Amino acid sequence: MKKIINDPARFVEEFLDGLCRAYPGQIRSLPDDPRVIVRAVPKEEGKVAIVTAGGSGHLPVFLGYVGRGMIDACSVGNVFASPSAESMFNAIRAVDTGAGVLCLYGNYGGDKMNFAMAQEMADFEDITVREIRVCDDIASSPEETKENRRGVAGLVYAYKIAGAAAEEGRSLDEVIAVTNRALASIRTMGVATSPCIVPEVGRSTFQIEDDMIEVGMGIHGEPGISVQKMMTADEIAELVTAKILTEITLAEGDEVSVMVNGLGATPLEELMIVFRRVHQLLSDMGVTVVLPHVGEYATSMEMAGCSVTIFKLDEETKALLTAPGATPFYTNLNLL
Amino acid sequence: MKKIINDPARFVEEFLDGLCRAYPGQIRSLPDDPRVIVRAVPKEEGKVAIVTAGGSGHLPVFLGYVGRGMIDACSVGNVFASPSAESMFNAIRAVDTGAGVLCLYGNYGGDKMNFAMAQEMADFEDITVREIRVCDDIASSPEETKENRRGVAGLVYAYKIAGAAAEEGRSLDEVIAVTNRALASIRTMGVATSPCIVPEVGRSTFQIEDDMIEVGMGIHGEPGISVQKMMTADEIAELVTAKILTEITLAEGDEVSVMVNGLGATPLEELMIVFRRVHQLLSDMGVTVVLPHVGEYATSMEMAGCSVTIFKLDEETKALLTAPGATPFYTNLNLL
Repeated sequence: MKKIINDPARFVEEFLDGLCRAYPGQIRSLPDDPRVIVRAVPKEEGKVAIVTAGGSGHLPVFLGYVGRGMIDACSVGNVFASPSAESMFNAIRAVDTGAGVLCLYGNYGGDKMNFAMAQEMADFEDITVREIRVCDDIASSPEETKENRRGVAGLVYAYKIAGAAAEEGRSLDEVIAVTNRALASIRTMGVATSPCIVPEVGRSTFQIEDDMIEVGMGIHGEPGISVQKMMTADEIAELVTAKILTEITLAEGDEVSVMVNGLGATPLEELMIVFRRVHQLLSDMGVTVVLPHVGEYATSMEMAGCSVTIFKLDEETKALLTAPGATPFYTNLNLL
Repeated sequence: MKKIINDPARFVEEFLDGLCRAYPGQIRSLPDDPRVIVRAVPKEEGKVAIVTAGGSGHLPVFLGYVGRGMIDACSVGNVFASPSAESMFNAIRAVDTGAGVLCLYGNYGGDKMNFAMAQEMADFEDITVREIRVCDDIASSPEETKENRRGVAGLVYAYKIAGAAAEEGRSLDEVIAVTNRALASIRTMGVATSPCIVPEVGRSTFQIEDDMIEVGMGIHGEPGISVQKMMTADEIAELVTAKILTEITLAEGDEVSVMVNGLGATPLEELMIVFRRVHQLLSDMGVTVVLPHVGEYATSMEMAGCSVTIFKLDEETKALLTAPGATPFYTNLNLL
């Protein structure tokens, strides 16, 4: 056990306290529910609010995107565990401005069940609530049953699109429509080369052999689609890109954003080598890469590996993606 | 060997290519020396240029800070190895606008020797060059011989201060004076809990026992000041803060910036727990933390561990630290 922590039972409380101490101008926790993080400066009245939720252990996902131009509140669970329905409801109630609330979250059983209950509580207080579950991980279910897929790094793009649309003052229906349209053009696949340690468990919850790689592994260690001999960075980029392009059709002149996301322990240099090959493949097709995201956006503690997300843009989603956004862990760097 | 790479001999070329593909609006490599990264949009004529250099394997350090408000060029070496004097000279020549060039780099033997040669080449072409070697790592030599200390995460603060002063149009002497003054109030100490793998070596170059922690280890695995039983996050924060405060005197009402820097594999959640305790200790002294930096700023591939840097501010250095800055891996998030 080599984790830089104190009492594992206080892991979530302590990192949330650290986060709120680091970014007092941007985020705060609710006084009566410290597991709910909201924007320090609330959104203007009459704008749609975006709420998310999920287990801990994935920073910057989920709460790191609370801020201007992205999401308004996040309900935070224990490591790899859904928060409670009550906490989700507290998040919804805290940020509703009367224009309705979009619950935008990754498609996991516990989150789905608890958000359903939270939405019932909100209905009871006459808060208009709708939801979108993000299902971008193509390795987790076949295309025919894509509603069963897990939500992974594509969540970050979904937050950005929905958040920018809401900041513009669009209605709840309009925010939902454009976010769903964006998600129809977002696909992710990842590989893992080493496991992670959940603090309360204190050891790796699974193993990957020294010369092997898990293709399609989930961000909680869910089994992938294959375990195979370790590959080169280019082979990984080629495999993942080819798989994604079976579901996203690209032609010369198209524009995409690409996210190469580190799962935790993989050096940024290695992510850049993967990005290089994805960029080459897309450039060879005559596709332009707009505003790439290379770094750690959705992690699994200290798991090694990466995921690649491709987001096919149109004029509207491109404008929303490149709109200003500033949260503790996300800004539109390329635009400054 | 579980690195996501291709040919280890092409590691540096490939990640640099990836970087330049990711940030075409911000950085580019020199056509005749791809190991030199410069700003895509050069600084205005008549402003002091800032040049750095160092080995690869530490992203975002060093080249990730090339951009507006920080540094103008970086000469990039192989993993953990100094770039050549010629490459450093190419960097100097590429960004000199006639106002002089400050070579601002970490205090390592190879870099020092090669920068000395590069500066001779620059003299020969009548480019005014001066240098500052950053020596912020208190674990690497006693205070009496602090000029022998290594440069680590404090480099990032040095880039920010020098870069902001240069953007304001200050003279070379003035940029040097304020950067030296800032560095006199910047100290860093780190701990490591696991080693890293250099691509060309293919295995860990040293070991840390399963239940042990290296206190004061350098970012290339240089021995620290002690190897001891694994500590809690709070114990690490207390030990490191106490050591730093033997050299930086703080009193009620003082302002500091704090950097809790991940060495590569340590989850952001754990960095937040360390930051929390440092923030508590400083708050208890009546010291205000301004613009903290918690994340990966200076890494050692996939080494696990973290460093803490404390930077005591005055009105001038606070203004320079909080001035706008935008590079691929650094923006003043809190100010947006």
